Amino acid sequence: MKKVIIDCDPGHDDAIALLLAAKAEDIELIGVTTVAGNSELHNTTRNARKILDYAGYTNIDVHAGCDRPMMRDLFRLTGAIIHGEDGLGGPSIPAPTTPIKEEHAVDYLIRTLRSSQESIILIVTGPMTNIAVALQKAPDIKDKIDKIIMMGGAVIEPGNITSAAEFNIFVDPEAAKIVINSGCELYLVSLDVSMKAVFFEEDIEKLRAQGDKISTIVASLLDFFADTHVKHFGFKACPIHDALCVGYLIDESLLEFKKTFVDISLHDPLTLGETVADLWEITGNQPNCHIALKVDREKFVSMICDHMKIDCR
Amino acid sequence: MKKVIIDCDPGHDDAIALLLAAKAEDIELIGVTTVAGNSELHNTTRNARKILDYAGYTNIDVHAGCDRPMMRDLFRLTGAIIHGEDGLGGPSIPAPTTPIKEEHAVDYLIRTLRSSQESIILIVTGPMTNIAVALQKAPDIKDKIDKIIMMGGAVIEPGNITSAAEFNIFVDPEAAKIVINSGCELYLVSLDVSMKAVFFEEDIEKLRAQGDKISTIVASLLDFFADTHVKHFGFKACPIHDALCVGYLIDESLLEFKKTFVDISLHDPLTLGETVADLWEITGNQPNCHIALKVDREKFVSMICDHMKIDCR
Amino acid sequence: MKKVIIDCDPGHDDAIALLLAAKAEDIELIGVTTVAGNSELHNTTRNARKILDYAGYTNIDVHAGCDRPMMRDLFRLTGAIIHGEDGLGGPSIPAPTTPIKEEHAVDYLIRTLRSSQESIILIVTGPMTNIAVALQKAPDIKDKIDKIIMMGGAVIEPGNITSAAEFNIFVDPEAAKIVINSGCELYLVSLDVSMKAVFFEEDIEKLRAQGDKISTIVASLLDFFADTHVKHFGFKACPIHDALCVGYLIDESLLEFKKTFVDISLHDPLTLGETVADLWEITGNQPNCHIALKVDREKFVSMICDHMKIDCR
Amino acid sequence: MKKVIIDCDPGHDDAIALLLAAKAEDIELIGVTTVAGNSELHNTTRNARKILDYAGYTNIDVHAGCDRPMMRDLFRLTGAIIHGEDGLGGPSIPAPTTPIKEEHAVDYLIRTLRSSQESIILIVTGPMTNIAVALQKAPDIKDKIDKIIMMGGAVIEPGNITSAAEFNIFVDPEAAKIVINSGCELYLVSLDVSMKAVFFEEDIEKLRAQGDKISTIVASLLDFFADTHVKHFGFKACPIHDALCVGYLIDESLLEFKKTFVDISLHDPLTLGETVADLWEITGNQPNCHIALKVDREKFVSMICDHMKIDCR
Repeated sequence: MKKVIIDCDPGHDDAIALLLAAKAEDIELIGVTTVAGNSELHNTTRNARKILDYAGYTNIDVHAGCDRPMMRDLFRLTGAIIHGEDGLGGPSIPAPTTPIKEEHAVDYLIRTLRSSQESIILIVTGPMTNIAVALQKAPDIKDKIDKIIMMGGAVIEPGNITSAAEFNIFVDPEAAKIVINSGCELYLVSLDVSMKAVFFEEDIEKLRAQGDKISTIVASLLDFFADTHVKHFGFKACPIHDALCVGYLIDESLLEFKKTFVDISLHDPLTLGETVADLWEITGNQPNCHIALKVDREKFVSMICDHMKIDCR
Repeated sequence: MKKVIIDCDPGHDDAIALLLAAKAEDIELIGVTTVAGNSELHNTTRNARKILDYAGYTNIDVHAGCDRPMMRDLFRLTGAIIHGEDGLGGPSIPAPTTPIKEEHAVDYLIRTLRSSQESIILIVTGPMTNIAVALQKAPDIKDKIDKIIMMGGAVIEPGNITSAAEFNIFVDPEAAKIVINSGCELYLVSLDVSMKAVFFEEDIEKLRAQGDKISTIVASLLDFFADTHVKHFGFKACPIHDALCVGYLIDESLLEFKKTFVDISLHDPLTLGETVADLWEITGNQPNCHIALKVDREKFVSMICDHMKIDCR
Repeated sequence: MKKVIIDCDPGHDDAIALLLAAKAEDIELIGVTTVAGNSELHNTTRNARKILDYAGYTNIDVHAGCDRPMMRDLFRLTGAIIHGEDGLGGPSIPAPTTPIKEEHAVDYLIRTLRSSQESIILIVTGPMTNIAVALQKAPDIKDKIDKIIMMGGAVIEPGNITSAAEFNIFVDPEAAKIVINSGCELYLVSLDVSMKAVFFEEDIEKLRAQGDKISTIVASLLDFFADTHVKHFGFKACPIHDALCVGYLIDESLLEFKKTFVDISLHDPLTLGETVADLWEITGNQPNCHIALKVDREKFVSMICDHMKIDCR
Repeated sequence: MKKVIIDCDPGHDDAIALLLAAKAEDIELIGVTTVAGNSELHNTTRNARKILDYAGYTNIDVHAGCDRPMMRDLFRLTGAIIHGEDGLGGPSIPAPTTPIKEEHAVDYLIRTLRSSQESIILIVTGPMTNIAVALQKAPDIKDKIDKIIMMGGAVIEPGNITSAAEFNIFVDPEAAKIVINSGCELYLVSLDVSMKAVFFEEDIEKLRAQGDKISTIVASLLDFFADTHVKHFGFKACPIHDALCVGYLIDESLLEFKKTFVDISLHDPLTLGETVADLWEITGNQPNCHIALKVDREKFVSMICDHMKIDCR
């Protein structure tokens, strides 16, 4: 069993990532931490709890973390356009009843990592604020992190928040820089693959046709998400960025990675938050990050559909 | 007849651009200016003269311009790798006999534009130093510039000199910024199209098979160029970036442009020289540049082959 | 009684700041936190404990904090030159026997501030890493911080680590930026005053002549500190930067402040860590920081001499 | 005789610099070039001609140069506040009758330097645009430039346009960077000395009391200049920045220089245009600029008074 903590800001694709991890056979989702990103912290935290409760995973603890990026105000607008005002627009899901844990996400991460016998995989699907603060306060936890699989960035594809930058990195570029330079084993799942692993209308319909409770709600979430993508970006297909990180743990053949040097642009407003990869290997810098360059869309669609209908509680 | 001045740094693809313009029916190539870029100024100037003499265009004047970028040393290495030590490696072409004009390129540009009845099209296939200095010293010439068609930048594609930047812009990013913000009508032919309009081996062979003097020498130039691309970038196909700018004048259906806001990254070493376009139209800035997004490769290959064999002197 | 926590990196002037606070009548030094800065964290922590033990303040707890700046490696060289290899060069002081507290400085700061009935004054005499991380993880503590008096920066005077930047800010400029923009009530004691409040040789001799144990050891510390200043900066006088922050709490007439907008330069290597103040009030930004512009040197020298000889345990 | 060209943007202190150079025994003022800076180019050009005509120097040619900074719009506001709407507010001086020369300042500089047997001293009292463009277009002129004495920058003193930057450099920082890195022999006369060489009210009265035509008009110019300084900066004394550059040629004991490495901050909006000097010699960069650190105010006041009353035509 792969021990996993998901640090997230649900968000539609985060919610699906949580469900995928909870349902995957080989994954033990030992905890969930939340951060401000797609929506304010209180929203992302409630949404994480909400989706887990709805799917019956009341035993997975949720810890709220940082309520703001390290050196900037939360860039709120786009999250609200894409994910709705409360961060998880679309189907009505009952308010969660399982309480949020009191311990701060950063403290939870540090305590859990330090006390674990085995190393733990971190999946990060929001701004990297919590991870950056944890690494700053307790650099020793690096030894207990098996790897960090992060949704973020855009190496070849244009960004989705500016032409240069992807949302998660743009929202807290300093945190991203800290994590990228942390020396942890890093896997970056960027728009380069997530925009190629989109759900088309027929995929959503296939999922809905499965008829079970979770497939149905996920299809409804994707309806909303596809709608906002049409309105904001002008295309109909619906990416589920964050779930790819989990998908890779389930089946490594889903993604192809290349290890290269990556850094974050912080010093030019034009390119703020851009993930600059040394694709031509000309900087002489040591590779520090595996970047995903290829994805098997068909496999991903099947994986989502197959897992959503599983009742594995 | 379209009156055209080409500002260039030959360079293999510049040389082919010169030939294409000289041979095109509807284009009057009234002068050529040179700049340091693919090689030192004395090389690029000699190469421009050399190719024009070889093809019999002794009546087209060549004026040497700036021997260095505005605020940086000439980045020499990559030019030499790709274009050879003298900037035009490959076939042996006799030294030029027609003299270089004494007047500095910047003075020539200003004088010619000011004294012209009609407006003139500038094609810029090297770093934009000459144009930037001319616009700084004589801003009134803007009214006589019909448009500037520039080879440079990489909006979606990665760069070719760093992952973020294309060579021409990277070599003199400040000059590029001056031109981009000049208010002239701008057409940017970037790697986004030039890397899709490559000559494959069979295209080069088709050209060579035409058997005439110019087709033969151009095929030899492309042999060399294709070789250095294999060695440096690892792919066999051979782009002729600069000739696309001329090709668009010959047949506008060759390229599809979109007008958007473009700016040059100057303030982060990671992204220096990157051409950042407001693809999502979120900056609120006025579009200032037409960027090429689509190219018809077959048409381009045919155009080059057809024109090279024409003897239109 | 003013409740005070000192966050420091002793360091000679930090050590004297600790003694001054411990001995001041109106100040209750409730705890000390340490950070990497003038020396590595294990050195600055041991030095804080060492000086407090030596002076008999075994009841004041010392908590170690962050062992590195947020986004950079510790800039080690200058600290070692100025403060010696172990951060407190000069007189031999016995190793401390009172144990360091286990709780991390950031946790201690958050817990203490949250649980305090009254608001607490923070004096920060090293890089601002601990405070920045605490504010990031627990933004609510701002309400319990009475004010932050920080030694750092150089508004008019040149810097001491580069021509533009002062050491404490330069070492962790991102942390400084977080604190400067935190909305806390801020007092910046910069080189503008600390370089004017220097101890001359006769001041050191006056202190030594007092003959008591603490005056004697402090005079020896100043001997070492004056020596390294001669060697590194070429002047003989000896600043005690950090103690000015405490001095201001003892007697507000020691310093004159002006409230203005201050920000930290992060984006140009030439000016990295510079504290840029809106002296001419032309930016239109709200004043966010009191900057010290005048100091009464005589008063400061007397204050140090008078307090060192007090045995107030 | 020292052969001198003054490149300026009059401006009150530029006007006095012109008069001082014209009247100095050992200086042959062979030409004057103008640039946009304190006011628009047409104003600074007319003002140069106006003051020279008024003083009878109709034989000194005036050439207009660049009408805008290299990469930015002219920062107009402060110039107008300090120098008046037309750049030379205060006394009514008749419109000039001697025509402006047709040749562009940049061409004049290049032609004159190239054709001169001896090397020529350039005094630059405005933004460095003309010099930067000339050096870019004709790098060989460097060999004919004896030295460049520039009014600009603020090494220790705060700036006068932002807290970090002085006006001349701030207006065209890229031009300043080109000149600073040109390899010419450079003398920088900054606010560090010019703000210490101010005329007090009694100095202006002493000048006026001399009673001659030029002393009288200069006293009137200083009345206006002193007034705007009171209103804008809140102090009564009146600096004559630009004339110090000429003063140094007349009597080298007027200023003390130190040679050090200087660079211009371009990449952080906070510090844009700051002249950063390597005062502590820690960068390892070769010194490239003499910076003025001391001035003899009394000598300067006497020099101005003595020269203004000379009729040396």
